[in-house]
Amino acid sequence: MKIFGDSRSGNCYKIKLLAALLEIQHEWIHVDILEGGTQTPEFLNKNPNGKIPVVELADGRCLSEPNAIINFLASGSALVSSDPYEYAKVQQWQFFEQYSHEPFIAVARFIAKYLGLPDDRRAEYESKQEGGHKALRIMEEQLQQTPYLTGGQLSTADISLYAYTHVAGEGAFDLQR
Amino acid sequence: MKIFGDSRSGNCYKIKLLAALLEIQHEWIHVDILEGGTQTPEFLNKNPNGKIPVVELADGRCLSEPNAIINFLASGSALVSSDPYEYAKVQQWQFFEQYSHEPFIAVARFIAKYLGLPDDRRAEYESKQEGGHKALRIMEEQLQQTPYLTGGQLSTADISLYAYTHVAGEGAFDLQR
Repeated sequence: MKIFGDSRSGNCYKIKLLAALLEIQHEWIHVDILEGGTQTPEFLNKNPNGKIPVVELADGRCLSEPNAIINFLASGSALVSSDPYEYAKVQQWQFFEQYSHEPFIAVARFIAKYLGLPDDRRAEYESKQEGGHKALRIMEEQLQQTPYLTGGQLSTADISLYAYTHVAGEGAFDLQR
Repeated sequence: MKIFGDSRSGNCYKIKLLAALLEIQHEWIHVDILEGGTQTPEFLNKNPNGKIPVVELADGRCLSEPNAIINFLASGSALVSSDPYEYAKVQQWQFFEQYSHEPFIAVARFIAKYLGLPDDRRAEYESKQEGGHKALRIMEEQLQQTPYLTGGQLSTADISLYAYTHVAGEGAFDLQR
Protein backbone atom coordinates (compact mmCIF):
# COMPACT_ATOMS: atom_id res chain seq x y z
CA MET A 1 0.00 0.00 0.00
CA LYS A 2 1.21 3.51 -0.87
CA ILE A 3 0.21 6.61 1.07
CA PHE A 4 0.66 9.94 -0.73
CA GLY A 5 0.88 12.75 1.78
CA ASP A 6 2.69 15.61 3.48
CA SER A 7 3.34 14.99 7.15
CA ARG A 8 2.87 18.70 8.00
CA SER A 9 -0.81 18.32 7.07
CA GLY A 10 -3.17 17.26 9.84
CA ASN A 11 -5.30 15.42 7.31
CA CYS A 12 -2.27 13.30 6.39
CA TYR A 13 -1.29 12.89 10.04
CA LYS A 14 -4.58 11.05 10.62
CA ILE A 15 -3.40 8.29 8.27
CA LYS A 16 0.10 8.18 9.81
CA LEU A 17 -1.34 7.90 13.34
CA LEU A 18 -3.85 5.19 12.37
CA ALA A 19 -1.19 3.20 10.50
CA ALA A 20 1.10 3.42 13.54
CA LEU A 21 -1.64 2.33 15.97
CA LEU A 22 -2.67 -0.66 13.85
CA GLU A 23 0.90 -1.39 12.60
CA ILE A 24 -0.16 -1.16 8.95
CA GLN A 25 2.80 -1.59 6.61
CA HIS A 26 2.97 1.06 3.91
CA GLU A 27 5.20 3.13 1.68
CA TRP A 28 4.97 6.88 2.43
CA ILE A 29 5.36 9.06 -0.64
CA HIS A 30 5.89 12.74 0.11
CA VAL A 31 3.79 15.16 -1.97
CA ASP A 32 4.48 18.87 -1.51
CA ILE A 33 1.28 20.93 -1.76
CA LEU A 34 3.06 24.28 -1.88
CA GLU A 35 5.21 23.02 -4.79
CA GLY A 36 2.17 21.93 -6.80
CA GLY A 37 2.60 18.20 -6.22
CA THR A 38 -1.15 17.62 -6.02
CA GLN A 39 -1.84 19.25 -9.40
CA THR A 40 0.23 17.01 -11.70
CA PRO A 41 -1.65 14.83 -14.23
CA GLU A 42 -0.30 11.72 -12.47
CA PHE A 43 -1.63 12.82 -9.08
CA LEU A 44 -4.97 14.05 -10.46
CA ASN A 45 -5.44 10.59 -11.94
CA LYS A 46 -5.39 9.24 -8.37
CA ASN A 47 -7.60 12.02 -6.96
CA PRO A 48 -9.33 14.36 -9.44
CA ASN A 49 -9.94 16.80 -6.56
CA GLY A 50 -6.16 17.36 -6.27
CA LYS A 51 -5.87 16.87 -2.52
CA ILE A 52 -3.75 14.76 -0.22
CA PRO A 53 -3.83 12.27 1.41
CA VAL A 54 -4.47 9.50 -1.12
CA VAL A 55 -4.06 5.79 -0.48
CA GLU A 56 -3.23 3.47 -3.38
CA LEU A 57 -3.84 -0.20 -2.66
CA ALA A 58 -1.67 -3.01 -4.02
CA ASP A 59 -4.25 -3.68 -6.75
CA GLY A 60 -4.14 -0.04 -7.91
CA ARG A 61 -7.47 1.09 -6.43
CA CYS A 62 -7.27 4.55 -4.82
CA LEU A 63 -9.12 6.19 -1.99
CA SER A 64 -9.09 9.85 -0.95
CA GLU A 65 -10.61 11.95 1.86
CA PRO A 66 -8.73 11.27 5.10
CA ASN A 67 -11.69 10.27 7.27
CA ALA A 68 -12.94 7.78 4.65
CA ILE A 69 -9.40 6.38 4.39
CA ILE A 70 -8.96 5.77 8.12
CA ASN A 71 -12.41 4.19 8.41
CA PHE A 72 -11.41 1.81 5.61
CA LEU A 73 -8.00 1.01 7.08
CA ALA A 74 -9.52 0.42 10.53
CA SER A 75 -12.42 -1.73 9.31
CA GLY A 76 -12.59 -4.95 11.26
CA SER A 77 -10.64 -3.42 14.19
CA ALA A 78 -12.06 -2.17 17.49
CA LEU A 79 -11.66 1.42 16.19
CA VAL A 80 -14.72 1.08 13.93
CA SER A 81 -17.87 -0.41 15.45
CA SER A 82 -19.89 -2.93 13.47
CA ASP A 83 -23.07 -1.52 15.06
CA PRO A 84 -24.72 0.81 12.49
CA TYR A 85 -25.67 3.49 15.05
CA GLU A 86 -22.23 3.48 16.68
CA TYR A 87 -20.52 3.68 13.28
CA ALA A 88 -22.85 6.53 12.29
CA LYS A 89 -21.84 8.38 15.50
CA VAL A 90 -18.19 8.04 14.42
CA GLN A 91 -19.10 9.52 11.06
CA GLN A 92 -21.16 12.28 12.73
CA TRP A 93 -18.03 13.48 14.52
CA GLN A 94 -15.94 13.16 11.36
CA PHE A 95 -18.38 15.25 9.31
CA PHE A 96 -18.40 17.76 12.18
CA GLU A 97 -14.60 17.81 11.89
CA GLN A 98 -14.57 18.52 8.16
CA TYR A 99 -17.30 21.19 8.22
CA SER A 100 -17.18 22.85 11.65
CA HIS A 101 -13.62 22.29 12.93
CA GLU A 102 -11.03 21.95 10.14
CA PRO A 103 -12.13 25.02 8.10
CA PHE A 104 -11.47 27.19 11.18
CA ILE A 105 -8.65 25.56 13.12
CA ALA A 106 -6.61 24.09 10.27
CA VAL A 107 -6.93 27.17 8.09
CA ALA A 108 -5.94 29.57 10.92
CA ARG A 109 -2.94 27.35 11.70
CA PHE A 110 -1.95 27.24 8.01
CA ILE A 111 -2.10 31.04 7.69
CA ALA A 112 -0.07 31.56 10.89
CA LYS A 113 2.46 28.73 10.71
CA TYR A 114 3.08 28.16 7.01
CA LEU A 115 2.29 31.57 5.49
CA GLY A 116 3.72 33.61 8.41
CA LEU A 117 0.47 35.54 9.00
CA PRO A 118 0.77 38.02 6.10
CA ASP A 119 -1.20 41.27 6.40
CA ASP A 120 -3.56 40.41 3.54
CA ARG A 121 -4.73 37.24 5.34
CA ARG A 122 -4.99 38.74 8.85
CA ALA A 123 -8.74 39.51 8.67
CA GLU A 124 -9.44 35.96 7.45
CA TYR A 125 -7.21 34.56 10.21
CA GLU A 126 -9.03 36.51 12.89
CA SER A 127 -12.42 35.50 11.49
CA LYS A 128 -11.52 31.85 12.17
CA GLN A 129 -11.16 32.25 15.93
CA GLU A 130 -14.84 32.23 16.91
CA GLY A 131 -15.75 29.12 14.90
CA GLY A 132 -12.64 27.30 16.05
CA HIS A 133 -13.30 27.96 19.70
CA LYS A 134 -16.92 26.88 19.22
CA ALA A 135 -15.76 23.54 17.78
CA LEU A 136 -13.37 23.03 20.71
CA ARG A 137 -16.15 23.85 23.18
CA ILE A 138 -18.45 21.23 21.61
CA MET A 139 -15.68 18.62 21.86
CA GLU A 140 -14.97 19.58 25.48
CA GLU A 141 -18.64 19.24 26.45
CA GLN A 142 -18.70 15.71 25.04
CA LEU A 143 -15.37 14.75 26.64
CA GLN A 144 -16.65 15.86 30.04
CA GLN A 145 -19.37 13.21 29.69
CA THR A 146 -17.45 10.34 28.06
CA PRO A 147 -13.74 9.45 27.86
CA TYR A 148 -13.83 9.33 24.05
CA LEU A 149 -15.95 11.27 21.57
CA THR A 150 -18.36 8.45 20.84
CA GLY A 151 -18.43 6.95 24.35
CA GLY A 152 -16.25 4.53 26.24
CA GLN A 153 -14.15 3.26 23.35
CA LEU A 154 -11.43 4.87 21.24
CA SER A 155 -12.64 5.15 17.63
CA THR A 156 -11.47 6.66 14.36
CA ALA A 157 -13.53 9.73 15.32
CA ASP A 158 -10.97 10.52 18.04
CA ILE A 159 -8.13 10.16 15.55
CA SER A 160 -9.89 12.48 13.09
CA LEU A 161 -10.45 15.15 15.74
CA TYR A 162 -7.07 14.77 17.42
CA ALA A 163 -5.18 15.58 14.23
CA TYR A 164 -5.78 19.33 14.06
CA THR A 165 -6.80 19.78 17.71
CA HIS A 166 -3.41 18.81 19.11
CA VAL A 167 -1.73 21.54 17.04
CA ALA A 168 -4.54 24.11 17.41
CA GLY A 169 -2.24 26.25 19.54
CA GLU A 170 -0.27 26.98 16.37
CA GLY A 171 -3.36 28.85 15.17
CA ALA A 172 -3.57 30.71 18.51
CA PHE A 173 -6.46 28.61 19.85
CA ASP A 174 -6.46 28.32 23.62
CA LEU A 175 -6.43 24.62 24.49
CA GLN A 176 -6.44 25.26 28.26
CA ARG A 177 -10.16 26.02 28.16
CA MET B 1 -38.53 8.38 14.76
CA LYS B 2 -38.57 12.16 14.62
CA ILE B 3 -36.72 14.19 11.99
CA PHE B 4 -36.02 17.83 12.84
CA GLY B 5 -35.42 19.82 9.66
CA ASP B 6 -36.34 22.54 7.21
CA SER B 7 -37.31 21.22 3.80
CA ARG B 8 -35.72 24.24 2.04
CA SER B 9 -32.31 22.97 3.19
CA GLY B 10 -30.53 20.54 0.89
CA ASN B 11 -28.99 18.86 3.91
CA CYS B 12 -32.49 18.13 5.22
CA TYR B 13 -33.70 17.12 1.76
CA LYS B 14 -31.18 14.24 1.84
CA ILE B 15 -33.09 12.70 4.76
CA LYS B 16 -36.50 13.31 3.15
CA LEU B 17 -35.36 11.67 -0.10
CA LEU B 18 -33.79 8.67 1.65
CA ALA B 19 -36.86 8.18 3.85
CA ALA B 20 -39.11 8.30 0.77
CA LEU B 21 -36.95 5.81 -1.18
CA LEU B 22 -36.84 3.33 1.70
CA GLU B 23 -40.38 4.09 2.93
CA ILE B 24 -39.17 4.93 6.44
CA GLN B 25 -41.99 6.09 8.69
CA HIS B 26 -41.19 9.26 10.57
CA GLU B 27 -42.57 12.43 12.08
CA TRP B 28 -41.20 15.57 10.40
CA ILE B 29 -40.75 18.51 12.78
CA HIS B 30 -40.12 21.82 11.07
CA VAL B 31 -37.29 23.91 12.53
CA ASP B 32 -36.79 27.38 11.08
CA ILE B 33 -33.09 28.33 10.93
CA LEU B 34 -33.73 31.98 10.10
CA GLU B 35 -36.06 32.26 13.13
CA GLY B 36 -33.43 30.83 15.50
CA GLY B 37 -35.03 27.42 15.88
CA THR B 38 -31.66 25.66 16.01
CA GLN B 39 -30.34 27.81 18.87
CA THR B 40 -32.92 27.03 21.58
CA PRO B 41 -31.73 25.10 24.69
CA GLU B 42 -34.05 22.22 23.74
CA PHE B 43 -32.59 21.92 20.24
CA LEU B 44 -28.96 22.36 21.40
CA ASN B 45 -29.55 19.44 23.74
CA LYS B 46 -30.17 17.28 20.65
CA ASN B 47 -27.26 18.77 18.66
CA PRO B 48 -24.79 21.02 20.51
CA ASN B 49 -23.56 22.29 17.12
CA GLY B 50 -26.98 23.90 16.53
CA LYS B 51 -27.56 22.58 13.03
CA ILE B 52 -30.33 20.71 11.27
CA PRO B 53 -31.10 17.97 10.36
CA VAL B 54 -31.26 15.92 13.55
CA VAL B 55 -32.85 12.50 13.89
CA GLU B 56 -34.24 11.39 17.25
CA LEU B 57 -34.87 7.68 17.54
CA ALA B 58 -37.75 6.15 19.49
CA ASP B 59 -35.38 5.44 22.41
CA GLY B 60 -34.28 9.10 22.57
CA ARG B 61 -30.84 8.69 21.00
CA CYS B 62 -30.02 11.49 18.55
CA LEU B 63 -27.87 11.66 15.45
CA SER B 64 -26.79 14.74 13.51
CA GLU B 65 -24.81 15.44 10.31
CA PRO B 66 -26.95 14.57 7.28
CA ASN B 67 -24.55 12.16 5.59
CA ALA B 68 -24.03 10.17 8.80
CA ILE B 69 -27.82 10.07 9.27
CA ILE B 70 -28.59 8.68 5.81
CA ASN B 71 -25.83 6.08 6.10
CA PHE B 72 -27.40 4.96 9.36
CA LEU B 73 -30.96 4.92 8.01
CA ALA B 74 -29.85 3.00 4.90
CA SER B 75 -27.72 0.46 6.77
CA GLY B 76 -28.67 -3.05 5.74
CA SER B 77 -30.16 -1.83 2.44
CA ALA B 78 -28.55 -1.99 -1.01
CA LEU B 79 -27.74 1.75 -0.73
CA VAL B 80 -24.85 1.06 1.67
CA SER B 81 -22.40 -1.67 0.74
CA SER B 82 -21.19 -4.09 3.40
CA ASP B 83 -17.80 -4.22 1.63
CA PRO B 84 -15.39 -1.93 3.57
CA TYR B 85 -13.76 -0.47 0.44
CA GLU B 86 -17.10 0.18 -1.28
CA TYR B 87 -18.51 1.79 1.87
CA ALA B 88 -15.36 3.92 2.19
CA LYS B 89 -15.87 5.08 -1.44
CA VAL B 90 -19.40 6.19 -0.47
CA GLN B 91 -17.92 8.16 2.43
CA GLN B 92 -15.17 9.57 0.20
CA TRP B 93 -17.84 11.21 -2.00
CA GLN B 94 -19.78 12.38 1.06
CA PHE B 95 -16.72 14.07 2.59
CA PHE B 96 -16.04 15.60 -0.83
CA GLU B 97 -19.62 16.91 -0.74
CA GLN B 98 -19.24 18.53 2.67
CA TYR B 99 -15.84 20.11 2.03
CA SER B 100 -15.57 20.76 -1.72
CA HIS B 101 -19.18 21.03 -2.96
CA GLU B 102 -21.61 22.27 -0.28
CA PRO B 103 -19.53 25.26 0.93
CA PHE B 104 -19.60 26.63 -2.64
CA ILE B 105 -22.88 25.53 -4.21
CA ALA B 106 -25.15 25.59 -1.15
CA VAL B 107 -23.77 28.88 0.14
CA ALA B 108 -24.07 30.61 -3.25
CA ARG B 109 -27.66 29.34 -3.55
CA PHE B 110 -28.47 30.53 -0.01
CA ILE B 111 -27.12 34.03 -0.70
CA ALA B 112 -29.02 34.30 -4.00
CA LYS B 113 -32.30 32.55 -3.22
CA TYR B 114 -32.90 33.21 0.49
CA LEU B 115 -31.03 36.48 1.08
CA GLY B 116 -31.85 38.01 -2.32
CA LEU B 117 -28.18 38.60 -3.27
CA PRO B 118 -27.56 41.71 -1.14
CA ASP B 119 -24.70 43.99 -2.19
CA ASP B 120 -22.60 43.20 0.89
CA ARG B 121 -22.58 39.48 0.04
CA ARG B 122 -22.00 39.82 -3.73
CA ALA B 123 -18.21 39.39 -3.60
CA GLU B 124 -18.60 36.26 -1.46
CA TYR B 125 -21.28 34.97 -3.83
CA GLU B 126 -19.05 35.46 -6.85
CA SER B 127 -16.09 33.84 -5.09
CA LYS B 128 -18.13 30.61 -4.83
CA GLN B 129 -18.51 30.11 -8.58
CA GLU B 130 -15.06 28.67 -9.35
CA GLY B 131 -15.09 26.08 -6.55
CA GLY B 132 -18.68 25.10 -7.30
CA HIS B 133 -17.99 24.53 -10.98
CA LYS B 134 -14.88 22.53 -10.08
CA ALA B 135 -16.97 20.22 -7.86
CA LEU B 136 -19.53 19.75 -10.65
CA ARG B 137 -16.74 18.96 -13.14
CA ILE B 138 -15.31 16.27 -10.84
CA MET B 139 -18.76 14.70 -10.51
CA GLU B 140 -19.30 14.86 -14.28
CA GLU B 141 -15.96 13.13 -14.96
CA GLN B 142 -16.97 10.25 -12.68
CA LEU B 143 -20.49 10.01 -14.12
CA GLN B 144 -19.08 9.73 -17.64
CA GLN B 145 -17.32 6.56 -16.48
CA THR B 146 -19.97 4.96 -14.24
CA PRO B 147 -23.77 5.37 -13.99
CA TYR B 148 -23.54 6.23 -10.27
CA LEU B 149 -20.81 7.99 -8.30
CA THR B 150 -19.39 4.83 -6.75
CA GLY B 151 -19.93 2.55 -9.74
CA GLY B 152 -22.85 0.52 -11.04
CA GLN B 153 -25.13 0.78 -7.99
CA LEU B 154 -27.09 3.65 -6.50
CA SER B 155 -25.71 4.47 -3.04
CA THR B 156 -26.20 7.06 -0.33
CA ALA B 157 -23.31 8.98 -1.96
CA ASP B 158 -25.61 9.78 -4.91
CA ILE B 159 -28.32 11.00 -2.53
CA SER B 160 -25.80 13.22 -0.70
CA LEU B 161 -24.53 14.79 -3.92
CA TYR B 162 -27.95 15.06 -5.59
CA ALA B 163 -29.35 17.24 -2.81
CA TYR B 164 -27.59 20.51 -3.61
CA THR B 165 -26.64 19.62 -7.20
CA HIS B 166 -30.23 19.45 -8.44
CA VAL B 167 -30.86 23.00 -7.23
CA ALA B 168 -27.41 24.37 -8.14
CA GLY B 169 -29.00 26.49 -10.88
CA GLU B 170 -30.51 28.61 -8.08
CA GLY B 171 -26.93 29.66 -7.27
CA ALA B 172 -26.30 30.40 -10.98
CA PHE B 173 -24.27 27.23 -11.59
CA ASP B 174 -24.55 25.99 -15.15
CA LEU B 175 -25.76 22.38 -15.01
CA GLN B 176 -25.74 21.99 -18.81
CA ARG B 177 -21.96 21.54 -18.77
